Amino acid sequence: MKIINFDHFAATKMRPEVKDAMERFFIEEYGNPQSIHALGDEPREALSKARLQAGELLNASSGEVIFTSCGSESNNLALKGTALARMDKGRHLVVSKIEHFSILNALKSLARLGFEFTEVPVDKYGSVDPADVKAALRKDTVLVSVTHASNEIGTIEDIKEISRVVHENSLAYVHTDANASCGFIETDVKDLGVDMLSAAPHRFYGPKGTGLFYLKKGVRIMPLIDGGIQEFGRRAGTENVPAIVGAGVACEIAKRELKERTAHLKPIQSEIIRGVLGGLDEVYLNGHPENRVPNNLNFVVRYIEGEGMLMWLNNNGIMVASGSACTSKILKSSHVLNAIGVDPALAQGSLLITLGEDNTLEDARYFADRLPGVVKKLREMSPLYEEAKRRGEGL
Amino acid sequence: MKIINFDHFAATKMRPEVKDAMERFFIEEYGNPQSIHALGDEPREALSKARLQAGELLNASSGEVIFTSCGSESNNLALKGTALARMDKGRHLVVSKIEHFSILNALKSLARLGFEFTEVPVDKYGSVDPADVKAALRKDTVLVSVTHASNEIGTIEDIKEISRVVHENSLAYVHTDANASCGFIETDVKDLGVDMLSAAPHRFYGPKGTGLFYLKKGVRIMPLIDGGIQEFGRRAGTENVPAIVGAGVACEIAKRELKERTAHLKPIQSEIIRGVLGGLDEVYLNGHPENRVPNNLNFVVRYIEGEGMLMWLNNNGIMVASGSACTSKILKSSHVLNAIGVDPALAQGSLLITLGEDNTLEDARYFADRLPGVVKKLREMSPLYEEAKRRGEGL
Repeated sequence: MKIINFDHFAATKMRPEVKDAMERFFIEEYGNPQSIHALGDEPREALSKARLQAGELLNASSGEVIFTSCGSESNNLALKGTALARMDKGRHLVVSKIEHFSILNALKSLARLGFEFTEVPVDKYGSVDPADVKAALRKDTVLVSVTHASNEIGTIEDIKEISRVVHENSLAYVHTDANASCGFIETDVKDLGVDMLSAAPHRFYGPKGTGLFYLKKGVRIMPLIDGGIQEFGRRAGTENVPAIVGAGVACEIAKRELKERTAHLKPIQSEIIRGVLGGLDEVYLNGHPENRVPNNLNFVVRYIEGEGMLMWLNNNGIMVASGSACTSKILKSSHVLNAIGVDPALAQGSLLITLGEDNTLEDARYFADRLPGVVKKLREMSPLYEEAKRRGEGL
Repeated sequence: MKIINFDHFAATKMRPEVKDAMERFFIEEYGNPQSIHALGDEPREALSKARLQAGELLNASSGEVIFTSCGSESNNLALKGTALARMDKGRHLVVSKIEHFSILNALKSLARLGFEFTEVPVDKYGSVDPADVKAALRKDTVLVSVTHASNEIGTIEDIKEISRVVHENSLAYVHTDANASCGFIETDVKDLGVDMLSAAPHRFYGPKGTGLFYLKKGVRIMPLIDGGIQEFGRRAGTENVPAIVGAGVACEIAKRELKERTAHLKPIQSEIIRGVLGGLDEVYLNGHPENRVPNNLNFVVRYIEGEGMLMWLNNNGIMVASGSACTSKILKSSHVLNAIGVDPALAQGSLLITLGEDNTLEDARYFADRLPGVVKKLREMSPLYEEAKRRGEGL
């Protein structure tokens, strides 16, 4: 059976050169980078190199790069670290309605401690209007956090303008969750104008076990993981040297191949959109039609149970996901699809595709060829479809 | 030059069989364990297996094992997670004076949020008296956290009795930091009677990048890293599958070899104590003379600058540390040595040895043979020594 992986949401296949670079630091150079003796020398130098590589991808200095364990940790560090550090300034945060759960649930934890937050709405494409962010600012707002690109529907937000508006009208810091964008589109922190940025190298062919966190020079946050002096005192714990080394190489490759990646993925993305929308009725693309990351596709297929579609596709070698991969087992309606106005009943029929470097145009055609047959079969079995036909809804 | 690594404090050489088990999950089986499709199957099963292996080492069920990214994260999760979950019960925590920085600094962060804590003293050996813990309990105490064995001076605490006293006299949970003991002595959570326990597989020949956290069934804490549903909703973020698999194997090996490890390390530890105390005057062993983990040695050498001693040893191929490895670059007096009554001026001449499986009796003798010469030379250069001689102090 042909296997097509259209689910690179949280896991991508590590590049051989990433693995090669890590190899030396598992057993041979196992020392602790904080050691004052020679066993720490090579691991310490390797960390410095990785920090430079990550800095170059983000257009930051290496002193502004903190390695965490994952994208979720970076997001939690941004929110909780800022909230805790700036309590004297205020206790209000602003986010968008379509943030990842590591942002939204971190806010819920902060709310238990008396912090308040405002969720800014998005339009039908999932775009945040910077004017809405401005309107949400209060005198006690300490942080604004808006995703760089939606994990789920791929829409790229105008972080540059959001940063400008926030900095012009408040003392709040700006954080952006770039876990779904970094490694695929430009994430230049200076151009974006952000104070903090989170990214996840394991989503762009790096190893699991590291997250990137950009912290602009002079911006003060408290650690999420308190303890030793690692990572400039901002993230304690013995450094995961092999994974950090691998993350550095993944960043270097990403910087070099950024344009190629878009050039490779965009036509595949377009082919899938063309094939799916052309081959089926009552199917909609979620997210912005053009202003989206090149590796994301999200469809709502009306009048079917989404679970059945996923099962059939997955059983037939086409790996796809539904909604946020972090909660893919909870088949409840996605807060992101709710926010862009998708009827919760329809959101059940959503299909999340995240492309990777192994995908081809042929994969796109193979998928677009097979989907209509599956959907047709499922609709024939669906009470929703029967009912809609009876009502004479636009079928 | 002969190289002897006597600094296994934070970093140990990974076992080849640990690496071998990880290998498959870097590139071949790179899927996200949360996937609903087949690419997640093998990674998911591998996580389950690792959880069983870790549970067996701790005498816990696999549903009570949470994988974090490091020992410091586990300690922070215990303190902050409990504090945040139990605010309705109270805002007071009890710890010992000799806890790791990931405990003490987490408390400082909690103090910013209005939590209070009591530090229980230790005796000259670093032992906590359970009666002192009992005396520190308040009606609003929500957690007691005492290290299982001191990171720095090796003393094993009577956690079993501390747990009994705390549970008998309060509703507080008990956490123990077993980062310095797990993998070297028994860490049976049922025997210890604890509600939570932290451990670090990379300290016992497992990979960097994972920590263990035992959370007793029914004990409620809030996540430190909020987000998705991973790790029973207690630790979000895409799982670091290779490292977790490696951690599981390290746990399995530790369980099998626990007795052998003590049998191997104890004679080396004794030989170093005998050699150092016998070959030098004005040298003291810190920590309990017998009731200590088999891999730890901590000496105070009077009348020298400790930095010089470390430099000489390290330059001569004998890798040792001073004080806590997490802050080894900050050559300030250790809070642990202060707590056991070591004069801050003398604490500068401290020597921390952490043994590993590659160390031999021959290493012990080689070290004990060379140390007196170095110390003699350093003392000849030391103003402290000159002054003591003038005062006729016991030399």
